[in-house]
Amino acid sequence: MTLYFDHNATAPLHPAARAAMCAAMDVVGNPSSVHSAGQQARGIVERARAQVAKALNVDEKGIVFTASGTEANNMVLTPHWRGCGYDLPLSCMLCAATEHVSVINGSHFAPELCFSIPVDAHGRVLPNVLRGELVKLAAQFDVPPLVSIQLANNETGVIQNIPELAAIVHEFGALLHVDASQGLGRIPIDMQTLGADIVTASAHKCGGPLGVGIIARRSHKMELAQSLIRGGGQEGGQRAGTQNVPAIAGLGALLPSPLAGEGGQRPDEGYKTTQQDNPSPFAALLPLPQGAREHIEHSLLTTFPTAIIFGQNAPRLPNTTLFAIPGITAEKALMAFDIAGVALSSGSACSSGKVGKSHVLKAMGVADELAACAIRISTGWNTTQDEITKFLTVAHTVLTRLAARAEKRVA
Amino acid sequence: MTLYFDHNATAPLHPAARAAMCAAMDVVGNPSSVHSAGQQARGIVERARAQVAKALNVDEKGIVFTASGTEANNMVLTPHWRGCGYDLPLSCMLCAATEHVSVINGSHFAPELCFSIPVDAHGRVLPNVLRGELVKLAAQFDVPPLVSIQLANNETGVIQNIPELAAIVHEFGALLHVDASQGLGRIPIDMQTLGADIVTASAHKCGGPLGVGIIARRSHKMELAQSLIRGGGQEGGQRAGTQNVPAIAGLGALLPSPLAGEGGQRPDEGYKTTQQDNPSPFAALLPLPQGAREHIEHSLLTTFPTAIIFGQNAPRLPNTTLFAIPGITAEKALMAFDIAGVALSSGSACSSGKVGKSHVLKAMGVADELAACAIRISTGWNTTQDEITKFLTVAHTVLTRLAARAEKRVA
Repeated sequence: MTLYFDHNATAPLHPAARAAMCAAMDVVGNPSSVHSAGQQARGIVERARAQVAKALNVDEKGIVFTASGTEANNMVLTPHWRGCGYDLPLSCMLCAATEHVSVINGSHFAPELCFSIPVDAHGRVLPNVLRGELVKLAAQFDVPPLVSIQLANNETGVIQNIPELAAIVHEFGALLHVDASQGLGRIPIDMQTLGADIVTASAHKCGGPLGVGIIARRSHKMELAQSLIRGGGQEGGQRAGTQNVPAIAGLGALLPSPLAGEGGQRPDEGYKTTQQDNPSPFAALLPLPQGAREHIEHSLLTTFPTAIIFGQNAPRLPNTTLFAIPGITAEKALMAFDIAGVALSSGSACSSGKVGKSHVLKAMGVADELAACAIRISTGWNTTQDEITKFLTVAHTVLTRLAARAEKRVA
Repeated sequence: MTLYFDHNATAPLHPAARAAMCAAMDVVGNPSSVHSAGQQARGIVERARAQVAKALNVDEKGIVFTASGTEANNMVLTPHWRGCGYDLPLSCMLCAATEHVSVINGSHFAPELCFSIPVDAHGRVLPNVLRGELVKLAAQFDVPPLVSIQLANNETGVIQNIPELAAIVHEFGALLHVDASQGLGRIPIDMQTLGADIVTASAHKCGGPLGVGIIARRSHKMELAQSLIRGGGQEGGQRAGTQNVPAIAGLGALLPSPLAGEGGQRPDEGYKTTQQDNPSPFAALLPLPQGAREHIEHSLLTTFPTAIIFGQNAPRLPNTTLFAIPGITAEKALMAFDIAGVALSSGSACSSGKVGKSHVLKAMGVADELAACAIRISTGWNTTQDEITKFLTVAHTVLTRLAARAEKRVA
């Protein structure tokens, strides 16, 4: 049996999502068709839209379904928005240095119009640093920028203080996009509390299906002047292509029914949070092993005193630990863990199956040599106390052996 | 029970695809992850890629999976190709007037660089007309155009003579894209026989899953200089975003196993074609009720002598009939059919649930008044002889009643 500790790459599909997908597969009909079969398919899509909108505390007309978080990010990172108070295209993009590659590579601003916000050693965008960058851009451009800051980092789990940063962005009249892919289903995402103008997310990091992403706009009047994917008039003209009905149904199934009183059952196991700890509407079906992160990190630091937890002193996702033991490269460690039946990652999984250099750790000022040792542990809705205990036993064995070899090499 | 005769909008999911999707949902892992779980997911994707490549008779490195046919069309309709002998961006786009809206609206050429090829009254692109358009463009531009001609029309089912047209396109050194979404799984699509440089398709029109489209290039050396969706390096850098593993698995399941000897079972019912009639690799699982089209059309023409079959004298898909009875508007007829339990369409389903004007019929020179009466019947892999008999009975009743009312209005 594999101990799967790589939820930030993709999470096991939740049974509720699986069941809803299988049920939706038996509904025949294109949501754009006028006949009853089509309207039934459309009903599934619209029910999920209402659920997602409620979960994000935004009007359902503001929700656009895409095929992935990457597509959602590519789609919104454009100068051409209308209905948000700008007559002219947004001047440029300003994003945190630690953004996901789908933000850094996926922007539709010219490369010379993409600017970066440095983060501190803990991976945080500091308010004054953001302000400084906005002042610089205000001096250079007449029209405000599109600012993109992720809710939580995929590699470190570091959570940005979006409400505080949003207030600064709006002081400058700029637009704020928040990539919440790693936050969805793990921490509350209330668009009103966050103060974001646009939130994007992917469903498959928390237990939802592959093949569905979300764009949430604070108002449906905020529209892409020209959509990235064009053809039929689906999704309010914002994104063409027949909707992926089963995947959208699967995402909706993770959320409480629009009818009051319904809600998923949660297993009663160790580490699981209560509804009170995490008021996210996903929490009923997707409890996170919150105490587990501290347990894992305490165990690692006790056994390996040289271990470093990246972003340790910043607010982080309750499921993510990125750590390094100097001298033990991730490449070697991941192979050893894989042989021992543990699925871990070096960070982002969005490349071609290789352990690459992390731009996130580089932005945090981590030396290349240490960054090459970074290993990510990410748990999720189905991680049990027993699995964590087993994992720590394996980790102790694997890392001790690799540490001994590393010492031998040095000696 | 609904008589579902709207396969060209979306087809019922084939049980083999459904089973493969459900099985793939239980595989945990991101295809980009280095660990065994990730490699298992990657194996599913690569197996399907090999199957699709074999079905289209092209190298598997030439296949890119997208989230839809619309996305695939948007992605390839760009001036910026490399590795196909042009140092400069392609000059313009030349597409048939009857192309799908994802071609007409989805091109990334400037609007003034999008040109249209007229079709004849039967909906066909005539070789000399294509040649004439290419001569005009050759006089205007130094670099050849990207030509886009669909294999089969979604509204009429009219099949273009791609091999003949491809030869002309290549005489002019131009690149040929063929949107084969309505052909996939219904007629053979052999890229070598067709002579297309790029073929795109959607899986959900023939019985495959929603959420997966295909781009097939005659060589993987032909690359998009900049992809439409960017981020991680998935799909050979041509299309970012975690692959939709279950949907891709579902598409693969419609095709024979890469191992020789395997193959799907087909029911032995009336109308079903034999492998010999349709050598498409999809034919084993997706037999089409070929004789049925002639049966349906003969019945309609006998009962309603004023009925018109659009594209009647052109080669057409074996599953598609677009007809009109003057005086009976599609809007009224579709509603009456829906109440009678029959799902039909007026043509394209890719708009917002409304019966719109058909640019396809307009291009064929059909008057608006007659076009407003166009009703599409499209059958598929699970249509039975019994269903067709029942449909014809309902159609006779519904259309006779509407014809009587129409006559009363005239009188």
